[in-house]
Amino acid sequence: MSSYPQSLEHLLEELQQLPTVGPKTASRLAFYLLGAPKERVEALARAMIEVKERLTACTRCGNLAQGQLCEICSDPRRDARLLCVVANTRDLMAMESSGEYTGLYHVLGGLISPLDGIGPAELNVGKLVERLKLEPVEELIIATNPTVPGEATALYLKDLLKHRTGLSVTRLASGLPMGADLEYADPLTLSRALNNRRAF
Amino acid sequence: MSSYPQSLEHLLEELQQLPTVGPKTASRLAFYLLGAPKERVEALARAMIEVKERLTACTRCGNLAQGQLCEICSDPRRDARLLCVVANTRDLMAMESSGEYTGLYHVLGGLISPLDGIGPAELNVGKLVERLKLEPVEELIIATNPTVPGEATALYLKDLLKHRTGLSVTRLASGLPMGADLEYADPLTLSRALNNRRAF
Repeated sequence: MSSYPQSLEHLLEELQQLPTVGPKTASRLAFYLLGAPKERVEALARAMIEVKERLTACTRCGNLAQGQLCEICSDPRRDARLLCVVANTRDLMAMESSGEYTGLYHVLGGLISPLDGIGPAELNVGKLVERLKLEPVEELIIATNPTVPGEATALYLKDLLKHRTGLSVTRLASGLPMGADLEYADPLTLSRALNNRRAF
Repeated sequence: MSSYPQSLEHLLEELQQLPTVGPKTASRLAFYLLGAPKERVEALARAMIEVKERLTACTRCGNLAQGQLCEICSDPRRDARLLCVVANTRDLMAMESSGEYTGLYHVLGGLISPLDGIGPAELNVGKLVERLKLEPVEELIIATNPTVPGEATALYLKDLLKHRTGLSVTRLASGLPMGADLEYADPLTLSRALNNRRAF
């Protein structure tokens, strides 16, 4: 029996390489593109290529930047005494979305995960040590995920920096998320919430 | 607080125009594209544009074609005495995937739906009548969805073609889907399955 025309098959293959896109979504997207005005499709294609051409890593913190320094590093209102270590730009944006944090960031570019062949050498750690020498950082907030790789990375950094005087190293609190229901909380989160209980 | 660099914001906007893509998926896709090799992103962008440039409607049946006639219309092994009317190319491909059908197709480009302003004039119906005059069609199988617009379109076609001698007009069976459980079948499907019961 016949199949799709060759150029459509090719687009379907390309779309299925994307995360979250299986055969059904790929065909839905492809038919949407087929039906959309030519200008829309060209605009999307152009946006995809431009993002690759224009965005680089900030030379200071590793965040996405359109130029040498990212928006955060070039903002003089940010508090240079606070430095928050995150795994990647998405985590950085999540931190920003809380609207609470006024300091700077350092993006590691991943987390220590021996099973995936990622050790400290694969992360942006050398640059972090260098920044701590040059910048007036007073508190280093380790904001890696409360997962095995996130904890391993946090422990590694804590150990690496333990001899630096005048630098306090902190870690984001972990416990029950806001609005959570104890009944449905997982045992690990509950035991963490219990161990980290605060005076009230 | 800061936001994404401008070219990334632009890509996110473009991605969110796609069906099934909300803010979360858009950011997942955008970060995938940022991390992917430049060639991959360019290949996807090119495939999107090529599909728009290369694919046109088959001049005979309205199916997608890379040239004048689609693959099905240009296949001499297809039985020209059978003509199956479908709403769109996706339905045509679904029919093909059953591997059962050996005839030709006619793609309407939609279904009659007065609420959406789609009447017979908006569909590829004139061309269908023309084909029935020129081609040796013996059976016209109406394979529109068993929904209100699908039934309305089927009734309209049946009425339009009732005076043609030597043409039998049929409709896909509707009833319980294979593997269905009566307990969970909707009442409309059950009543249809009961009314259309066959000798066994």
